[in-house]
Amino acid sequence: MTARLTIALDVMGGDRAPAVVIDGANIARERFPNVDFLMVGDEQRIAPLLARLPLLQKVSQILHTDKSVSADEKPSVALRTGRQSSMRLALDAVADGRAVAAVSAGNTGALMAMAKLSLRTVPGIDRPAIASILPSQRGETVMLDLGANVACDAENLVQFAIMGDAFARAVLGLVNPSIGLLNIGSEEMKGREELRQAAALLRESPLAAQFKGFVEGNNLSSGTVDVVVTDGFTGNVALKTAEGTAQLIVHLLRESFKSSIWARVAYLLMRPALSQFRNRVDPRRYNGAVFVGLNGIAVKSHGGTDGLGFANAIGVAVDMAMHGFLDKIRGQIAALQATAAEPVSAVSVVP
Amino acid sequence: MTARLTIALDVMGGDRAPAVVIDGANIARERFPNVDFLMVGDEQRIAPLLARLPLLQKVSQILHTDKSVSADEKPSVALRTGRQSSMRLALDAVADGRAVAAVSAGNTGALMAMAKLSLRTVPGIDRPAIASILPSQRGETVMLDLGANVACDAENLVQFAIMGDAFARAVLGLVNPSIGLLNIGSEEMKGREELRQAAALLRESPLAAQFKGFVEGNNLSSGTVDVVVTDGFTGNVALKTAEGTAQLIVHLLRESFKSSIWARVAYLLMRPALSQFRNRVDPRRYNGAVFVGLNGIAVKSHGGTDGLGFANAIGVAVDMAMHGFLDKIRGQIAALQATAAEPVSAVSVVP
Repeated sequence: MTARLTIALDVMGGDRAPAVVIDGANIARERFPNVDFLMVGDEQRIAPLLARLPLLQKVSQILHTDKSVSADEKPSVALRTGRQSSMRLALDAVADGRAVAAVSAGNTGALMAMAKLSLRTVPGIDRPAIASILPSQRGETVMLDLGANVACDAENLVQFAIMGDAFARAVLGLVNPSIGLLNIGSEEMKGREELRQAAALLRESPLAAQFKGFVEGNNLSSGTVDVVVTDGFTGNVALKTAEGTAQLIVHLLRESFKSSIWARVAYLLMRPALSQFRNRVDPRRYNGAVFVGLNGIAVKSHGGTDGLGFANAIGVAVDMAMHGFLDKIRGQIAALQATAAEPVSAVSVVP
Repeated sequence: MTARLTIALDVMGGDRAPAVVIDGANIARERFPNVDFLMVGDEQRIAPLLARLPLLQKVSQILHTDKSVSADEKPSVALRTGRQSSMRLALDAVADGRAVAAVSAGNTGALMAMAKLSLRTVPGIDRPAIASILPSQRGETVMLDLGANVACDAENLVQFAIMGDAFARAVLGLVNPSIGLLNIGSEEMKGREELRQAAALLRESPLAAQFKGFVEGNNLSSGTVDVVVTDGFTGNVALKTAEGTAQLIVHLLRESFKSSIWARVAYLLMRPALSQFRNRVDPRRYNGAVFVGLNGIAVKSHGGTDGLGFANAIGVAVDMAMHGFLDKIRGQIAALQATAAEPVSAVSVVP
């Protein structure tokens, strides 16, 4: 029998909270029979929704608060005034062990700031990062950082590689995922100095066998490597560029399907095949950006998602908790520190 | 009657040179009856190809050299040893006024290095950039820099905005194109310091009315602004991410069309509509990255393109030459220097 896991939900976060959060939890309940929910938020609004879903109600406990963080609140303000907010209390439940993970569709900046304060970074990790999964031609690719750090040095990037490795193992179930550093490959340029340094460090690290060197923007979706490591500025631009390009292509395609009577007939014939295609690139399927590098699991759902999308964000949290994501990071950090220590001790015995 | 323009072609550059270059010139000849070609390369290989195309032969002159820059040659080596190469002689023809623009499908790094040396930067521009056109939902977007400069300061970015403005006017025929600075918009971040500085400078510049502030990765293809300005690292990653995403979607779509007998029938019905779609996102249509900021026009064609793609690269060169691209840049630089000078003189009259 699998041990039961408790996931804390910020029931008040997101554009259509609390309904979408409760819907999402109900879908996740079917998928993960070993999961209990700590529903953090306004009891008066949560209880009536739960009353209609007795199976969900059975595995849920409400932690009442009438405070919540608004979508446009500044992270600094949220930190100062939001100590009793549903977002903060969900994170605190992870910090003190009442839950294994927190999921919120609320304000990203506030969630990041609160998660750092409440969960703190794993010893050996200087800065947390945001990681997510993207579709690729070979399946799925993990990318990080997606926006937590505008500039990163070589050590940060090596730490991101460690976190990306643990994430790919826990969430995608990969054994020894391949890792690449995002760079530019034009002949006149060899990219940025910190990238060359990070590559040198990775070649000497416990991840050496998995590290495949530099990759370029097009390798994100070709699936050349399983984990793409970059700074948060570049990662955020790349992620949004990919989303925008997908929207453009779907838009142009929709125009094609409307362009003639034959194309309209074709559309009807294509519908089942297209729904498969749509499912493959459905943003809800890739919902759930994770703050990695903290002493606890915090997953950010898209604010505008629906129940299915929120359930997928819960799924990411459950996968991370069930597959020992944090232990994997701690193990790699220890291994890295051991290899980093080696040359020093070797030097110390030389007279 | 329109004055005749001479375009210098590096006939030996590119994966399938010289055939593709000659094919491209022949297609361009039909489109631009006022263009003459200076065909730089091996006469023994060019002459027989031209002999089969009498109309092209009539508007072409061969500048013979048996030297060329190889695809994998280091820029520094090409600079030192390639003074008599077809690439360098084509650029030199622009430098001394025998041609208005040079087009090459050869080694990007070597072309950039040689173009800087041969053409030199426009006074007031510190660093040249690479610009290109991308498809968007609203038509087309100009983006720069695409890889010439891995890191840029605020002044560089302002100069890129000036060059992007001139490019959009000359090549897309836009009046007062809107301009955006590529940044990340997540709540916890306000992006990079140099971007905030560049935004402040642009708000005080002659481009103030056209400057729309920050844009994000998805705005590249939504067409929110006409010109997207960024550093060469971010621009290169974004461009390649967009290319990769488009390939992924087309790949998934092709799988959908194969997934059932009905989908195959649909594909047949869709073919005319899809060819329209394909044309809209055809990389050949967007072939021709331009080195902007130099005292002359140098256009880089994709090395693996075909005749149609090469003709489009020639088209970009012709548009820039015919619509006074260089004069537009020089005018804006002068206007910028005038506004930058103003506060100083204002201060000097205060006692």
